[in-house]
Amino acid sequence: MDSIAYVNGSFVPLSQAKVSILDRGFLFADGIYEVSAVLEGKLVDNASHLARLERSLGEISLPLPESIARIIEIQKELIARNKLENGLVYIEVTRGADKGRDFAFPKGAQPTLVMFTSVKDIVNAESAKKGIGVITVPDIRWARRDIKSVALLAQVLAKQAAAEAGAGEAWMVEDGKVTEGGSSSAFILTQDDVIVTRQNGSDILPGCTRKAVVKLAEERQLRVEERPFSIDEALKAKEAFITSASSFVQAVVSIDGKAVANGRPGPLTNRLREIYIGFARETGT
Amino acid sequence: MDSIAYVNGSFVPLSQAKVSILDRGFLFADGIYEVSAVLEGKLVDNASHLARLERSLGEISLPLPESIARIIEIQKELIARNKLENGLVYIEVTRGADKGRDFAFPKGAQPTLVMFTSVKDIVNAESAKKGIGVITVPDIRWARRDIKSVALLAQVLAKQAAAEAGAGEAWMVEDGKVTEGGSSSAFILTQDDVIVTRQNGSDILPGCTRKAVVKLAEERQLRVEERPFSIDEALKAKEAFITSASSFVQAVVSIDGKAVANGRPGPLTNRLREIYIGFARETGT
Repeated sequence: MDSIAYVNGSFVPLSQAKVSILDRGFLFADGIYEVSAVLEGKLVDNASHLARLERSLGEISLPLPESIARIIEIQKELIARNKLENGLVYIEVTRGADKGRDFAFPKGAQPTLVMFTSVKDIVNAESAKKGIGVITVPDIRWARRDIKSVALLAQVLAKQAAAEAGAGEAWMVEDGKVTEGGSSSAFILTQDDVIVTRQNGSDILPGCTRKAVVKLAEERQLRVEERPFSIDEALKAKEAFITSASSFVQAVVSIDGKAVANGRPGPLTNRLREIYIGFARETGT
Repeated sequence: MDSIAYVNGSFVPLSQAKVSILDRGFLFADGIYEVSAVLEGKLVDNASHLARLERSLGEISLPLPESIARIIEIQKELIARNKLENGLVYIEVTRGADKGRDFAFPKGAQPTLVMFTSVKDIVNAESAKKGIGVITVPDIRWARRDIKSVALLAQVLAKQAAAEAGAGEAWMVEDGKVTEGGSSSAFILTQDDVIVTRQNGSDILPGCTRKAVVKLAEERQLRVEERPFSIDEALKAKEAFITSASSFVQAVVSIDGKAVANGRPGPLTNRLREIYIGFARETGT
């Protein structure tokens, strides 16, 4: 059941999709990535992801090797070739392979463009019905977390710690406040019915799903405050949840083993999840 | 003039040496590397590099896919096959390729082991005769710089900035003090003839060449102090230099365009360089 991937101009079986060991994605984490969800065969909020891709690339002076229009064509061709109904399309752009290994940007190398898909039924995920537990870990990442680079070792270690603890995500904490999850944005609903999530800046990734959920909430006259919050505040909250392209909106029902409210997904979280799924269905491309 | 590389059990031409796009080195920077110098066909201070490889791997719970004895055999086979007299042997170990992309450690994946060589005449490098300029940049890296991981994007950006400024290295500065260079350890010689370099800890990589140079200096009754120093202190110093596997000991003659002392390599730096080259020749394996 080999799917089809895209590597630098060619569609190839994923099992045979390879890059040079000199690729700067492999040697230096000198690359940027994006993940767009696919719902019922259509890309969810894809323009937002591709805009962030361009922004991240710009921040590290890495040119996009294909036009955005061509990238969308490739995304759609992968969805079609893999008959993908529900899942994810992954895009990675690296600074390519030079003749050797030198930290500074290579002069002659062509950027690498790699894309592949995976199957995931985000809407019917069991974890969304029950909610997930999160653990907390110190946020040990670099200072430019707004760049969606493949330098993800800190997140790997955080999410591995979560997996070992039987949790679904790790919330990273810095100076007593939650920054974000290992691969998601963090939200709480306060006892005053205010939705709180950290404001964008270099200390978090500007989440695409985060942005859409904030907008959808505000359109419904829900109160949203963008500011840092502490674990203590989260444990006293009415509800907690995460957002990401690969989970949409998902309830957080415990933090470090302590229940959030009654330990079950809250009504606002469930409502925002339904609203987001509606948005994804209506606006998919 | 294709050299021979090693990828997971096979010796292959470097131009054909590839890894899966699912390799966690490529997707997550979930890997560790080392670089050992080769001088006159022999590995320099190699045991120290392999000990650090094992330590870094241990810190991210990544098993070494081959014994250290076997890795040394492969290093030597690469040196022989490539008739390498002077240069570098690069080793990278990653957590391998899983069937898909998931942050947490894969259950079934075999770690990836990649090795290749490059030619470099370190002893006769022009930059060693003239010394190099360095620029200063903020140290924006993560909190575990003692782990020699391939999550090197911050160093890439630092060293690219140096290259654009016509400098040979970037010194990273945190809280007013130099941590280290983008790929080297930073030293000064004070007006009181004290060699100063930052003490090891999670804020710098424990340099193998740094360690050897400190030991060689102490054996010669030179005074060494391990503590942070500022750029201001460096500009008032008698001498400044860097150490690394790929440059041995190299004078720093300017910082952000301002000369260090008379702007030429100093006598102690030259002496330590000769001492290190002697050590490398005598102890090469």
